[in-house]
Amino acid sequence: MVQNGQITFYTHMYSPNCHRVHIALEEVKADYTPVTINLMEKPEWYNQKVTITGKIPAITYGGPKHAPEEPSSEATPLIESMVIVEFLGELFPAANLIPRDPVLHAKARIFASVVDTKILEGLREFFFMGAPASGLLAAFEALQALLPPTGFAVGEWSVADIAAAPFLVRSLMLLEHDIGKYPVGEGKKTFEALHGPKFARILKYVEDAKAWPSFRATWDEAATLDIWKTNPAIQRN
Amino acid sequence: MVQNGQITFYTHMYSPNCHRVHIALEEVKADYTPVTINLMEKPEWYNQKVTITGKIPAITYGGPKHAPEEPSSEATPLIESMVIVEFLGELFPAANLIPRDPVLHAKARIFASVVDTKILEGLREFFFMGAPASGLLAAFEALQALLPPTGFAVGEWSVADIAAAPFLVRSLMLLEHDIGKYPVGEGKKTFEALHGPKFARILKYVEDAKAWPSFRATWDEAATLDIWKTNPAIQRN
Repeated sequence: MVQNGQITFYTHMYSPNCHRVHIALEEVKADYTPVTINLMEKPEWYNQKVTITGKIPAITYGGPKHAPEEPSSEATPLIESMVIVEFLGELFPAANLIPRDPVLHAKARIFASVVDTKILEGLREFFFMGAPASGLLAAFEALQALLPPTGFAVGEWSVADIAAAPFLVRSLMLLEHDIGKYPVGEGKKTFEALHGPKFARILKYVEDAKAWPSFRATWDEAATLDIWKTNPAIQRN
Repeated sequence: MVQNGQITFYTHMYSPNCHRVHIALEEVKADYTPVTINLMEKPEWYNQKVTITGKIPAITYGGPKHAPEEPSSEATPLIESMVIVEFLGELFPAANLIPRDPVLHAKARIFASVVDTKILEGLREFFFMGAPASGLLAAFEALQALLPPTGFAVGEWSVADIAAAPFLVRSLMLLEHDIGKYPVGEGKKTFEALHGPKFARILKYVEDAKAWPSFRATWDEAATLDIWKTNPAIQRN
């Protein structure tokens, strides 16, 4: 398979789920049109014309290029970040996003699933609810336990790393700047804990991911930080 | 790829997640050894030797046949029902469990994801917590909206139907026998509501799935009903 028709990408920079799709689109060198959707000021046509779930990311695939608010009848809407990432991996097999060995692909999916459960829960509780950092640190430890001694999650860069990197990099950024509902100083303290010997492997992994070309091409730390600094969901009262 | 080494399948009949893997194993005609794991009386070796998550289903893949409690060093443990189902689909491509068209595969994954979110939430709240049936009915309606006019979730039988059928068939069985934490009679009433014209499409879909060979080969309604009748998590007080 190769790209056979347009791709419209509905996204917003603050969202790690959107970032996953952005990395995959760059990685496979897709021809795509990005459309920024701010969920705080979501246009009415988004739920009516693109996806009834109203969530981002979404893409439409196929047919001629279309206005964001008027997908053509030939364009199929697809939702859910990892569904879209795996879809792009299948559409562009030459990009090797999906490990060819079914065992490695299964391990990549298990890694992504730990991100979507343990890591997300740890982030939600710490940054959005102000819970103690122990939960977040335990989640980092659980993910670290799945990493091989060197390299990416299953060796070569893959869908597993696309699943993880947007969340891990954002976490470290927020911790470094002490942004979150936790008590003042807890973020920096947790940032330092993560830089201790216990977390050396996952920190190296995050550095490797940040240096990967498709990650760098899709990551604007200063701009993303500005958005999170003012995100009301994560500010201290 | 084809099967290259043993498969040990850790499972229990009551579990719809295990049933997914069982259907896939039958469908691809894998050579496998089933091992019953009762989570209520879980053997100590299971978390130590097979999977630290302690969950079922799990499989080990590769190497020579091994005793259930002593996976060989060549056997890779894999967890999570849909990860294992997709793995088997990749290992046995001739079985056509995974749609070859990436768009159809993405749609199959979205269908499976609605099962894992809306349907599971509807089931948990109704059967295990005694919430009103409206949530469960809304979940059935949402899944029904994704079905094509005839046939399976994306046309031919696929991973999408393997994801859905074990949950949908068990729900109807429990409703018919009024088993669940809801008030007496609510199960049968909901069973009748689901047999009304509003749910005709999804009921036809469930009938088609029940008649599919690999489903029939892996479904013992009488024995499964006996287990659920005495499952303390779902009994009225």
